[in-house]
Amino acid sequence: MSNLVSFDGRVVIIGFGSLGPGVLPLLLRHFNLDASRVTIITAEERGHDIADKYGVTFINDPLTPENYRDRLIPLLKKGDFLLNVSVDVSSLALIELAWDVGAFYLDTCIEPWAGGYTDPGLSPSQRTNYALREAALKLKAAGKQPTAIITNGANPGLVSFFTKQALLDIARDTGMETTVPASRQQWAELAQKLGVKVIHVAERDTQVSATQPKQRGEFVNTWSIDGFVGEGCQPSELGWGSHENHFPADGRRHDFGSDCAIYLMRPGASTMVRTWTPTEGAFQGFLITHNESISIADYFTLKDGDTLRYRPTVHYAYHPCDAAVLSLHELAGKTWRQQPKQRLMMNEISAGVDELGVLLMGHAKGAYWYGSQLSIAQARELCPHNNATSLQVTATILAGMVWALENPERGLTEPDEMDFQRCLEIARPYLGPVLGVYSDWTPLERREELFPEDLDHGDPWQFKNFRVV
Amino acid sequence: MSNLVSFDGRVVIIGFGSLGPGVLPLLLRHFNLDASRVTIITAEERGHDIADKYGVTFINDPLTPENYRDRLIPLLKKGDFLLNVSVDVSSLALIELAWDVGAFYLDTCIEPWAGGYTDPGLSPSQRTNYALREAALKLKAAGKQPTAIITNGANPGLVSFFTKQALLDIARDTGMETTVPASRQQWAELAQKLGVKVIHVAERDTQVSATQPKQRGEFVNTWSIDGFVGEGCQPSELGWGSHENHFPADGRRHDFGSDCAIYLMRPGASTMVRTWTPTEGAFQGFLITHNESISIADYFTLKDGDTLRYRPTVHYAYHPCDAAVLSLHELAGKTWRQQPKQRLMMNEISAGVDELGVLLMGHAKGAYWYGSQLSIAQARELCPHNNATSLQVTATILAGMVWALENPERGLTEPDEMDFQRCLEIARPYLGPVLGVYSDWTPLERREELFPEDLDHGDPWQFKNFRVV
Ligand SMILES: NC(=O)c1ccc[n+]([C@@H]2O[C@H](COP(=O)([O-])OP(=O)(O)OC[C@H]3O[C@@H](n4cnc5c(N)ncnc54)[C@H](O)[C@@H]3O)[C@@H](O)[C@H]2O)c1
Ligand SMILES: NC(=O)c1ccc[n+]([C@@H]2O[C@H](COP(=O)([O-])OP(=O)(O)OC[C@H]3O[C@@H](n4cnc5c(N)ncnc54)[C@H](O)[C@@H]3O)[C@@H](O)[C@H]2O)c1
Repeated sequence: MSNLVSFDGRVVIIGFGSLGPGVLPLLLRHFNLDASRVTIITAEERGHDIADKYGVTFINDPLTPENYRDRLIPLLKKGDFLLNVSVDVSSLALIELAWDVGAFYLDTCIEPWAGGYTDPGLSPSQRTNYALREAALKLKAAGKQPTAIITNGANPGLVSFFTKQALLDIARDTGMETTVPASRQQWAELAQKLGVKVIHVAERDTQVSATQPKQRGEFVNTWSIDGFVGEGCQPSELGWGSHENHFPADGRRHDFGSDCAIYLMRPGASTMVRTWTPTEGAFQGFLITHNESISIADYFTLKDGDTLRYRPTVHYAYHPCDAAVLSLHELAGKTWRQQPKQRLMMNEISAGVDELGVLLMGHAKGAYWYGSQLSIAQARELCPHNNATSLQVTATILAGMVWALENPERGLTEPDEMDFQRCLEIARPYLGPVLGVYSDWTPLERREELFPEDLDHGDPWQFKNFRVV
Repeated sequence: MSNLVSFDGRVVIIGFGSLGPGVLPLLLRHFNLDASRVTIITAEERGHDIADKYGVTFINDPLTPENYRDRLIPLLKKGDFLLNVSVDVSSLALIELAWDVGAFYLDTCIEPWAGGYTDPGLSPSQRTNYALREAALKLKAAGKQPTAIITNGANPGLVSFFTKQALLDIARDTGMETTVPASRQQWAELAQKLGVKVIHVAERDTQVSATQPKQRGEFVNTWSIDGFVGEGCQPSELGWGSHENHFPADGRRHDFGSDCAIYLMRPGASTMVRTWTPTEGAFQGFLITHNESISIADYFTLKDGDTLRYRPTVHYAYHPCDAAVLSLHELAGKTWRQQPKQRLMMNEISAGVDELGVLLMGHAKGAYWYGSQLSIAQARELCPHNNATSLQVTATILAGMVWALENPERGLTEPDEMDFQRCLEIARPYLGPVLGVYSDWTPLERREELFPEDLDHGDPWQFKNFRVV
């Protein structure tokens, strides 16, 4: 796999933290992209040496609501690509700008301007990813071009592709005859027919450093620390399935938009759920809000007029690397005041795998996990300046950029609407083992041995059974 | 400080895990104890090399309810000392045996026979430390001799001495004239007069290994892993103060005994509270059950007939070493099935301090922490075969054994009833910096910035404000 797409435009990369340096070599490798056609705009010196190594222009000049048009418009013309892998720069502002100049756009989340995730002046509902997505969907309705892809990293992003592949696998393995669905409606009908009630994005990151333990006052992670703290302090959010019989006491509905998701009146960084991955087995992960929890739930919704017929519950269940678990614990102890130091683990990682996939539950075979088990060793072999976590993201960015250029007139697009097979084909060489595993695990396993709990024994797949209280 | 007491008896040490090897050199140093007068009975080969190094008899032959009398009676005569630093061997059985032969006794907890902490056949109330202590108090009532000290480690143990010193310090610093109280009644009156509402045993263990991170499937700790998992799976317990206005929804009272403590219908290993220590500042610790939560609350109780007049809320707020935080997280994820591997951190510790003290709150100066900040480096200088955690325990064992020999006819005794000044005098050279620090921290600090919470703003010292939900 070398040149994937013919592209003679320029690429402007916003942000050069963990993802920027990781995606740059992929673009240079697969786009026949001359380094002189790439510009980085970022907010600090981090990564300057890497940019220099590749001969790419590096501009340390933070974008703000006031300056971003002046800074970016001179750098972009029709057919160029604006890639946003920053924090604190509004995705929606950049998309409108990209459309104004006729440039393609891609990001891996929907980012607000600085402080948007934790602005105490906003209501919890306004600080959700649901609200950010609804704002993006309004832009989509305007129907502008060219293709602008949002939320296309590993998760959100890749996991939407995994979900579709997992549904086809379960259909095959339960003897259900099916062709690849051709529409959103058909996909949702397949999920319903299979009886899928719950979809976790079930991730266990075991990357660890044998030489640099987390220090006090240091937040350590395998990807953006600011990004993780930001989303961790947002309200916990989940797509709310049609099978759910117990609305959480701290759950709230939004009074606008599709109503496909709810939020909890607490930060995701202090909300835990039981889940399962093949290597780890059962574990507890954080129910951090993520855009895929909302977009996948929305995509697989079936309605009869205004009446909900089917929707899976969808949410993240994230066991970050051990040092990040400790960092979250410390952060909570400091009542969400971010640590003075941060460390993105990269060269010091000595071992570990980012086991990231979707866990589809409630169907005839119980639970099915489908995803990537990329190790740090394999990530290093495959592409420089990546760890296992970033490569799962940057490979999907690559796939999304290729797909955008191949499908230039799709306007604002979510991963759920893209060609999952084409995208998986492009990303897969960088994902390590990609596989599906069935399990008879349920969240009722071994419960109540020592203490009675408030459980629904009639339906293991109720959210209240997963939630750690 | 060399020979502390004249003793020509024999010492039988049950268990030789983390505490056994740590206390042995202290006894040999301060008891003029010939190695030939020491026998170790344990359940595995661990520590055999250390015993050999000191020339002490090492017997690997687990005690059981069936064999313990046959094994121990030949080894003990009047005036000897039975020291129990094992897990899974009943303290009460050993105390009765010690009294039968006329031997002194000391342990650092009240241990049931194997499985007692997590026997699903017992009710949660029966699995509490409150129940274990009530059973011990029944033995006490029998009035047998010689002195048998229970729960005399660092905590429980040392922290009872710290509490008394802290009360005297606060009295001094608030200009309250007082002499050292001479009775339980007077101590409780002092605490009441000072307005102490809450006492945390606030501990932050920062010991860490820069070469051996926790592995998957491994429980790592700086002291007994079996002991910690056992107490972590017991119900969370706390002495329940007279100022408390909000009885926890999951709280339960016992229908027997002094009623000084309550328990929660959940394991302490999943129950967290906000607390504070001088070096760490604010943090979240585990509300693991401990005997001191009950004995200190009981000791400082004032009643008018049957009516409760005063009692502080007392509980543990424990931040174990980082690797143990991760171990607990994994254990919870496996629904309390203990990890297949365990590792007691000792030589591989590269840095860290066990900051262990009592945090007295609600008085005129807010909060006062008094305790030991022993570092691993200092512990290693002071005594071989110890880390910072074990030395705080073994120094207190030493103090307790000396005190028992100096006070041979006290029958069953809790640390709260011992001479705290004599015991601190003996232990102190092994505790590193021992100091008191005032703080204006309260559990309401920085709360509700992002989400409303169910708090009592009228009284910061209510348990519901400390608890993490
Ligand atoms: N979908 C996914 O799977 C996924 C995975 C990882 C990260 N992300 C998201 O991607 C984004 C980047 O992640 P990362 O791990 O590379 O983050 P990072 O924190 O490592 O780097 C962020 C970069 O943004 C730059 N930046 C900050 N403020 C800026 C400004 N005002 N103008 C220009 N640049 C600015 C920083 O200097 C830094 O280079 C984050 O929003 C993160 O949430 C998504
Ligand atoms: N009060 C305190 O501050 C404090 C602190 C640490 C430990 N403790 C308690 O002290 C005890 C010992 O702690 P540790 O850290 O040394 O524990 P450990 O787990 O390191 O060692 C326990 C020892 O007991 C032995 N043992 C197990 N079953 C036995 C049996 N049936 N017969 C004889 N020996 C047996 C084991 O072989 C081992 O040598 C535990 O009960 C623990 O809870 C109290």
